[in-house]
Amino acid sequence: MPSMRSARWTLARPPKGMARLADFRLERFDVHEPRDGELLVNIRYHTVAPGVLAKLSGATYTAQVRPGDVIPGFAVGLVEASAAVGYVAGDIVVGDLGWATHAIVPATKVERLGASMFENSSVPLSAAVGLLGASGLAAFFGLTRVGNVRPGESVLVSSAFGAVGSAVGQFGRAIGCEMIGIAGSQEKCAALVARGGYKRAVAHTDTRFKDELATLLPQGADLYFDNVGGAVSDAAFDRLVLHGRVVLCGQTSSYGGRSAGNSKGMTVAITRRLTLRGFVVHDYADEFGAARQMIATWMREGRIRDDTEVVAGIESAPTLFLRQFEGSAPRAIISPGPD
Amino acid sequence: MPSMRSARWTLARPPKGMARLADFRLERFDVHEPRDGELLVNIRYHTVAPGVLAKLSGATYTAQVRPGDVIPGFAVGLVEASAAVGYVAGDIVVGDLGWATHAIVPATKVERLGASMFENSSVPLSAAVGLLGASGLAAFFGLTRVGNVRPGESVLVSSAFGAVGSAVGQFGRAIGCEMIGIAGSQEKCAALVARGGYKRAVAHTDTRFKDELATLLPQGADLYFDNVGGAVSDAAFDRLVLHGRVVLCGQTSSYGGRSAGNSKGMTVAITRRLTLRGFVVHDYADEFGAARQMIATWMREGRIRDDTEVVAGIESAPTLFLRQFEGSAPRAIISPGPD
Repeated sequence: MPSMRSARWTLARPPKGMARLADFRLERFDVHEPRDGELLVNIRYHTVAPGVLAKLSGATYTAQVRPGDVIPGFAVGLVEASAAVGYVAGDIVVGDLGWATHAIVPATKVERLGASMFENSSVPLSAAVGLLGASGLAAFFGLTRVGNVRPGESVLVSSAFGAVGSAVGQFGRAIGCEMIGIAGSQEKCAALVARGGYKRAVAHTDTRFKDELATLLPQGADLYFDNVGGAVSDAAFDRLVLHGRVVLCGQTSSYGGRSAGNSKGMTVAITRRLTLRGFVVHDYADEFGAARQMIATWMREGRIRDDTEVVAGIESAPTLFLRQFEGSAPRAIISPGPD
Repeated sequence: MPSMRSARWTLARPPKGMARLADFRLERFDVHEPRDGELLVNIRYHTVAPGVLAKLSGATYTAQVRPGDVIPGFAVGLVEASAAVGYVAGDIVVGDLGWATHAIVPATKVERLGASMFENSSVPLSAAVGLLGASGLAAFFGLTRVGNVRPGESVLVSSAFGAVGSAVGQFGRAIGCEMIGIAGSQEKCAALVARGGYKRAVAHTDTRFKDELATLLPQGADLYFDNVGGAVSDAAFDRLVLHGRVVLCGQTSSYGGRSAGNSKGMTVAITRRLTLRGFVVHDYADEFGAARQMIATWMREGRIRDDTEVVAGIESAPTLFLRQFEGSAPRAIISPGPD
């Protein structure tokens, strides 16, 4: 295999609070033959999830990213060369391959997806990092296993336009729930309702936000799927039924050292007898295959659809990443390479 | 029955933030014969629980207290005159009778306790508002039904010196758990360990608070019984095991409009996969009798003891109430009347 020019984003310096473009460095590098047990993967799509900010700033449940490390990002790619038993060129693999065009990784760090899952055009390969990827799996296990959602329940979702939130909306509707979304602008709310999944959506930037929530949920929501925390969650907690449940999936309002702004503490959780459950999707790794089959079936049946935009070119990754914290980002993934 | 002079504390004005003495008014009043369905109760002991502040400041799960209303307080008393079917003079009743020497209430608003429970000197009548009262019941149901505590588990408790927290310590030890308390001073911590219940206690005012928590709980706590919220809970969440549980019983750090100071939001709850459950003890009212029998049995067996101090004189109620927010209050109840 000839040496080739590839590219990847690495951490230039740990962000202090919110990240900046200067915290990221685009490096060209030469890939080499995979060593024993390794795979050379040609990355086709990768995410730029906001949760990565916490990993850049400090240790979370995974190790902190150090200067020089590739920026983490869930990705799907094709095996280009294999030195690992059981893997051959052309295999579809997913894993945290990072913001890069290519990755050389131990085969133990990736998961192989069956090619048959993508033979029907209703399930594009990009879905491997969307509805079938980390965000889709987080939505699936958060709703079903953590939230124990049942058909007919009302489900309120924060950051409903995000990768996880939009999957929650679609899956919840497929399960038979009434889905109410919270997003960062009227435009996003309109898109959520138009594209499907959400029956109604309300912008937390609206001055009448709390009143609108009350109007949309006169009986209260049974479940709140929280991707945000902070003041948005304060308002959401107030709209839950007695003994309501909260799925704690993300807390973007407190990432990057920003205050969560939870002024009431857990007082509402007490008066409403709420149950809150935090979860990490990796805990359900043994069941990922079965979940992907369920989601792919929903896609083939036309009950849900992957409407993620694809942004071409690895150069765009940090810009798209940072825009998500400004509330102006589309729900998009990166197609890093030229091919 | 002759008219008699009695006294009660009423709300002079709703507190703005922290309450002040001037927010309370001591009124003399004449009791009258109970009307149909009512009881005249001679109050023997009543609590001055910090949770009342929330009711004075704004609506919670119970109605807001209005100017002129008696200050709420869980109390035990003896029926002095009855106009209610099935009640006779001498009956022992408990309920929210308020900060008063006497109360005239519908019999439906109180609960009768069997006199046999107090025939043994190891179960004093004052325990009816302590280990057998609202704080003891909150500790009992919080630990057993909300926290699902099991023998051998490590339990961390905030506001461990308070009425609920001290009961949690004793009940937890009786169940067979290792109890670790958090309190507001070294003196309280020393008392907690000396009096029993808690194996260890740590002051959140200590500059080495977090380090000491880590030393005391090298493996982490299985359960955190939270009476406080805010920064203390931030530190406690950090010391929970993966999949640890949190019982949300009180949030004194955010009462009276003070900030809960939860800077991390629920991020730690996610990374540690915590389950948080808020509860209100009244939800278990059907099971109060059985719980009191269990607690009284523990008292008779000498496994737990009611070590609440009794402060005589209704005049002391607001002062004792306010001192609890300054961290200098003993664990005490009020004996309001002269008899």
